[in-house]
Amino acid sequence: MEDKFVIGFDYGSDSVRTLIVNALTGERVATSVKYYPRWEQGLYCNPKINQYRQHPMDYLEVLETSLREALSKSPVGTAEKVIGIAFDTTGSTPTFTDETGTPLALLPEFFENPNAMFILWKDHTAIKEAAEINELCKKWDINYTAYEGSVYSSEWFWAKALHVLREDEKVRKAAYSIVEHCEWLPAILTGVTSSKDIVRSRCAEGHKAMWHPQWGGLPSEEFLTTLDPLLAGFRKRLFTETKTADIPVGTLCPEWATRLGLSTNVIVAGGAYDCHMGAVGAGVTPHTLVRVIGTSTCDVMVSPYEEIGHRLIRGICGQVDGSVIPGMIGLEAGQSAFGDIYAWFKRILEFPIKNIIGKTELIDFNTRAVLIKEVCDNIIPILTKEAEKIPLSESTVIATDWMNGRRTPDANQLLQGTITGLTLGTTAPQIFRALVEATAFGTKAIVERFVSEGIRIDNVIGIGGIAHKSPFVLQTLSDILNMPIKVCNTTQTRALGAAMFAATAAGVYNKVEDAIDAMNSGFAVEYTPNPENVKAYADIYEKYIKVGQFTEKELFN
Amino acid sequence: MEDKFVIGFDYGSDSVRTLIVNALTGERVATSVKYYPRWEQGLYCNPKINQYRQHPMDYLEVLETSLREALSKSPVGTAEKVIGIAFDTTGSTPTFTDETGTPLALLPEFFENPNAMFILWKDHTAIKEAAEINELCKKWDINYTAYEGSVYSSEWFWAKALHVLREDEKVRKAAYSIVEHCEWLPAILTGVTSSKDIVRSRCAEGHKAMWHPQWGGLPSEEFLTTLDPLLAGFRKRLFTETKTADIPVGTLCPEWATRLGLSTNVIVAGGAYDCHMGAVGAGVTPHTLVRVIGTSTCDVMVSPYEEIGHRLIRGICGQVDGSVIPGMIGLEAGQSAFGDIYAWFKRILEFPIKNIIGKTELIDFNTRAVLIKEVCDNIIPILTKEAEKIPLSESTVIATDWMNGRRTPDANQLLQGTITGLTLGTTAPQIFRALVEATAFGTKAIVERFVSEGIRIDNVIGIGGIAHKSPFVLQTLSDILNMPIKVCNTTQTRALGAAMFAATAAGVYNKVEDAIDAMNSGFAVEYTPNPENVKAYADIYEKYIKVGQFTEKELFN
Repeated sequence: MEDKFVIGFDYGSDSVRTLIVNALTGERVATSVKYYPRWEQGLYCNPKINQYRQHPMDYLEVLETSLREALSKSPVGTAEKVIGIAFDTTGSTPTFTDETGTPLALLPEFFENPNAMFILWKDHTAIKEAAEINELCKKWDINYTAYEGSVYSSEWFWAKALHVLREDEKVRKAAYSIVEHCEWLPAILTGVTSSKDIVRSRCAEGHKAMWHPQWGGLPSEEFLTTLDPLLAGFRKRLFTETKTADIPVGTLCPEWATRLGLSTNVIVAGGAYDCHMGAVGAGVTPHTLVRVIGTSTCDVMVSPYEEIGHRLIRGICGQVDGSVIPGMIGLEAGQSAFGDIYAWFKRILEFPIKNIIGKTELIDFNTRAVLIKEVCDNIIPILTKEAEKIPLSESTVIATDWMNGRRTPDANQLLQGTITGLTLGTTAPQIFRALVEATAFGTKAIVERFVSEGIRIDNVIGIGGIAHKSPFVLQTLSDILNMPIKVCNTTQTRALGAAMFAATAAGVYNKVEDAIDAMNSGFAVEYTPNPENVKAYADIYEKYIKVGQFTEKELFN
Repeated sequence: MEDKFVIGFDYGSDSVRTLIVNALTGERVATSVKYYPRWEQGLYCNPKINQYRQHPMDYLEVLETSLREALSKSPVGTAEKVIGIAFDTTGSTPTFTDETGTPLALLPEFFENPNAMFILWKDHTAIKEAAEINELCKKWDINYTAYEGSVYSSEWFWAKALHVLREDEKVRKAAYSIVEHCEWLPAILTGVTSSKDIVRSRCAEGHKAMWHPQWGGLPSEEFLTTLDPLLAGFRKRLFTETKTADIPVGTLCPEWATRLGLSTNVIVAGGAYDCHMGAVGAGVTPHTLVRVIGTSTCDVMVSPYEEIGHRLIRGICGQVDGSVIPGMIGLEAGQSAFGDIYAWFKRILEFPIKNIIGKTELIDFNTRAVLIKEVCDNIIPILTKEAEKIPLSESTVIATDWMNGRRTPDANQLLQGTITGLTLGTTAPQIFRALVEATAFGTKAIVERFVSEGIRIDNVIGIGGIAHKSPFVLQTLSDILNMPIKVCNTTQTRALGAAMFAATAAGVYNKVEDAIDAMNSGFAVEYTPNPENVKAYADIYEKYIKVGQFTEKELFN
């Protein structure tokens, strides 16, 4: 049989990864990573108010450069054998478009306007709007957030859209429709010229835009205009139908076929969010929790209809039919900070290094810079090495993992983190260890919620940077969950998952599960719980819960 | 009138300060500081188990060297005009003696035995014994701890004595009596040769040995032997009477007059604890809280009989008639960690500096050492500088000050510290600021207890290292207490207080209050509350109380 190749494009927060794989075996042919050029310069962002915007031109430029690089690393003739491509992106990362479906920032008059750009998932400028949506949902006869964890986030579609409409009169006047990053890329590559023709992502719209068949698609016009009259008219200009990502959106349009050096026969699959496609790339099956463990976590499960029925799973981020694997309910949860908590503690420890060594006259300017970098780069490794040595019985420090609020179970962005059990003998590695444990306790709280809601979990698959880089964190997680944790054999599960969707959309497989069976990368390592630690941690977890309950009830409400 | 001089010896944790002053004016003539030589080498201590012992020979050696140095700095003829000396020491710092009153460690067979030495106040080896004393007191028909805050500490007389008796058979067999550091120095200088003749300190025995006239002195033999039969016989070999420190113990014995180069006419006053004499040196009066602010705090007040009557002040460290100023009730409270909490955070921040810079090959060995020192020395100054700039409204971090347990109000050594309100944006200076606020909140809790118990407090006098060195801490304290805080014009209030007792004992003054009036050093600076901060801190204090109540009730009991 002749080789067939598919391409998965994984649009992360900072860069795109382009992965060319053999559609029959999953074998990796070539990969390329390109950083978003404007984003890399810090343009259009204001971290002080958590404003994070990305320019659509960034996305287009790296699409071309990364694919060309990946093809240049591939055997001659690979481009001709490419039969499908698929995209995963961050989300909810929406932008306003004109009637043609063009993001406003691609129009000359909006080219430098951050409000006309994609609003990155982690942008938190719409906190007020999210609160209003939550308030209105509570009063409304339909709870439109029911399938999105019953708490609407400032990171999501409608909150962001409303925030920009209120804030920017020029954008308000030009805004015709709204598109998610993962929908726009397939649309532009298939030559869509009307916003009405954009194929809508089940994953994105079901998880973040309150889309659900039960109420005929998006929330009613009355709901939206009660929220704010500025939203009038969008609903009917948007959509009523969404598609799962295994369904072809179309074929490459001539312009993009030329730009990418591919054929116009190439099938473009539907788009979805990175964690969802990542879960597929990691080989998600029922009763397995796939965790993308990085700065934060995204936890994904699938549940067959016969298990979940019509039940609502309380307190998770969302449940959407077909958002992960078509034909099953995709369930999403997550921690709003994981590795970010370790990075925070690292920043605390860096304070004297940067502020004092940076100004010392003992060593010259260049040595200072090299030394500061050496010290900072070694903080997490040395904390890890020392934390591993601490006997569990010596640990009195207990922390919660809410330094960035809590996403699940039961979203509450007002929460803040706590470290307790501190004595004058408490060391930096002890605090680090407690922070690692806190992130694992946060995971356990999610697992317990799934289980108490009737979703069995037998094991965990870890993907994402921390899963691959920190055996200490993974072993702690295994001990605290009392579950085995497997780590994928590749760090490219999201692009691989996209490639699986590309192969399915291109007709190589009948269904995504078959693509998983054929193309998966297997596992590199499995962590198993240490029975002694399991027991000790069960007690400490009770205290974690108590600390959490107290701070939630008494301090941060 | 001819000049008359008195000498105050202030025996601190690490060194003795000898201060020669003019008995009529309080004018400083000369001072000298000498470190305990064996202690400086870390001998006889084991920080891992909080064992801190001091050799009596250390005390004697520095007595001589420091006095000789102080005299050498004084005008010719000063020695001849010395009319009185007095000692303050740390406490409870007891040791076992033989029948002659000689500390066992001065006998050849015990010279290297830490159990035969003085057990420094901060030695915590007797935690178990303190718990047993507390348990027995609860059952007993007399609450012997009633005047010591109703909680007996592992830092105190009987707990330490019992611990050593249990631990060391050789000491047990040789132990005849027990003496406090502040009693032994006057005894040895006045040539006491029998343990029965040692004049007992009202301050030491009343605050730490459960001595009270209400039950005829020390706890009953039955109580002590029920606690442990090993204590049998000590009570009758000890004492029933105690004396205030203004009463002369005697005159210098010929041997010590020769060794010190002073006359045998010199009056030796009674001994007392350093904080109590320090409060006198600082000019304590009713309704003024004198705080010794250092690694921990010691808070001292005096209350006239007509104010306090026979009432028991609940939850403070102790109330003893004449322990500060004869004729008033001396009240003692304190925080078990204050500057130690800042030092702890400094140690946390030092971790990467010491562990990574200490091993880098980028710079040579000597530069490393100098750089590490430079960085470490600058941590607190730069934290202070940055913390001062943080607007109070931006502060979300709240901490408790229980990293070393809580001494008052309501002693509880099981408590541990907490830091909450942490976000990913929390900085090291914000944490430092919260720790400074926590130590001030801990002070406020003490002040509120005095007030709720009917002891009015109008203002605060600060002494001790932090009072003199950190305007930021003192201003925060003033804002949080909503009270003016005056800082003494001298850093030598303890030695000055001892000198006031020496002058009173030598007959220059009729009472200690007159010595205070004549000899006080005045104030260097006064901090007054900033009204805006007062209001904001009142709200944050409520949260401090809540966090404390939660951790005490739910976590550390």
